[in-house]
Amino acid sequence: MESTKNYEILKIKGQEKTKEEDLVVVEYPLTLELDGKKIMTLFCSPKSLKELVIGYLYSEGHIESLSDLENIQIDEKKGLAKISLTKGREEILEKKKLNTGMPSTFEEIKDSLKDKRIRKNLPIHEEILMDFMATFTENSDTFTKTGGVHSCGLYDYEGMIFFEDDIGRHNAYDKIFGRALLEGIDPKDKMILTSGRISSEMLVKAAKRQVPMIVSKSAPMSLAIDLANNLNMCLIGFVRGQRMNIYTNIPE
Amino acid sequence: MESTKNYEILKIKGQEKTKEEDLVVVEYPLTLELDGKKIMTLFCSPKSLKELVIGYLYSEGHIESLSDLENIQIDEKKGLAKISLTKGREEILEKKKLNTGMPSTFEEIKDSLKDKRIRKNLPIHEEILMDFMATFTENSDTFTKTGGVHSCGLYDYEGMIFFEDDIGRHNAYDKIFGRALLEGIDPKDKMILTSGRISSEMLVKAAKRQVPMIVSKSAPMSLAIDLANNLNMCLIGFVRGQRMNIYTNIPE
Repeated sequence: MESTKNYEILKIKGQEKTKEEDLVVVEYPLTLELDGKKIMTLFCSPKSLKELVIGYLYSEGHIESLSDLENIQIDEKKGLAKISLTKGREEILEKKKLNTGMPSTFEEIKDSLKDKRIRKNLPIHEEILMDFMATFTENSDTFTKTGGVHSCGLYDYEGMIFFEDDIGRHNAYDKIFGRALLEGIDPKDKMILTSGRISSEMLVKAAKRQVPMIVSKSAPMSLAIDLANNLNMCLIGFVRGQRMNIYTNIPE
Repeated sequence: MESTKNYEILKIKGQEKTKEEDLVVVEYPLTLELDGKKIMTLFCSPKSLKELVIGYLYSEGHIESLSDLENIQIDEKKGLAKISLTKGREEILEKKKLNTGMPSTFEEIKDSLKDKRIRKNLPIHEEILMDFMATFTENSDTFTKTGGVHSCGLYDYEGMIFFEDDIGRHNAYDKIFGRALLEGIDPKDKMILTSGRISSEMLVKAAKRQVPMIVSKSAPMSLAIDLANNLNMCLIGFVRGQRMNIYTNIPE
């Protein structure tokens, strides 16, 4: 399977707007199935999948050596890794079975978003978004000093409502939505600005709060684009200077 | 709490070697305690911690709104967030209690590494490491095409043994160690080269396999440095051109 994929996007460069094919990094959901039970989904590049599954099982303490592993079968088309363990299998199964209260496989995540389709989109005011992004990272002291954090801001077209940064992208999103809850702000008619790449995990966090638009300085991954399409979310990336790429909800 | 911290490191620039203070991004472990039971640790920047905890609880489906939350108390010094929920608290506790087979809080992770202290270090041959890094990312087609992946390689001083890349840093590490298991290669006398930042999660994955040295093109985070110090691992960062920073196991 290829690690990149083409999408038709709208490229904006100053006054120029062109629909173009754009190369996007593939984010591939690989669901682990232990003895016929789907336990969780890894989001990865679709290469060295057997190595990934074995390394993951090892890192998580499910196996100590190859001899704990009875069989692994990767079904690339279905995105399934069928695993059987020789030892401790029942205990692990038992633990996982009891821990399915929260969605953890990709199918469960998609299911949990079924009623989250965006009903009301925001207009795309390109120049305002470019202006916002021009000064965006200046909000982060830590970014300015070290470059080593991910920044995230809740905005409307009036400007920034609040800003958070963190060493982890998922944490920056969680901080934004935690603060929105604390301050009683509904993000349904707001947008997220971010410095970092948009993976499916970030998109899902925003979709849960029905944020209609995500705007990033960087690239989205394939699965984020696919999910945004399904959810009617507008995804804009590579906002740099007078340029930006619109990935979904492309205006006619 | 500050988001950056100074460490004394060895800076190498061509033939020049100087011990200097260097600004490092803080990675802060915040352990969530639900009704007196530690359930897991978030690794984050030490700011907006209450927002983070609330956003995390929401993202994971533990709370649906603020009214599900009885109380949150952040103890910054101890790195503890004491949470009590008004609803469904017992069920969640029950689930978590039954899922403690794998280490998930920072204390459990540190405990699991107790016998993993590195006994035999590798020498630091700076010029060879710089040579390796000069051509490192050329190994990744996807990186060359899109820049959107994290690369990881298992090396010894003879050269690269194998190379993996992935959209997720943790996946790239898992692929490396999965392949090492598959091919029967013990990483104990090898090193990891990587393009990405080194967080505690990456360091722990390498420590479990007792890798004595991690070499990165980017920066390590504070907690990775602290853990490496404890485990007698050598951590080298910012290997670019004729430069590199040695963060731990600094030669006298």
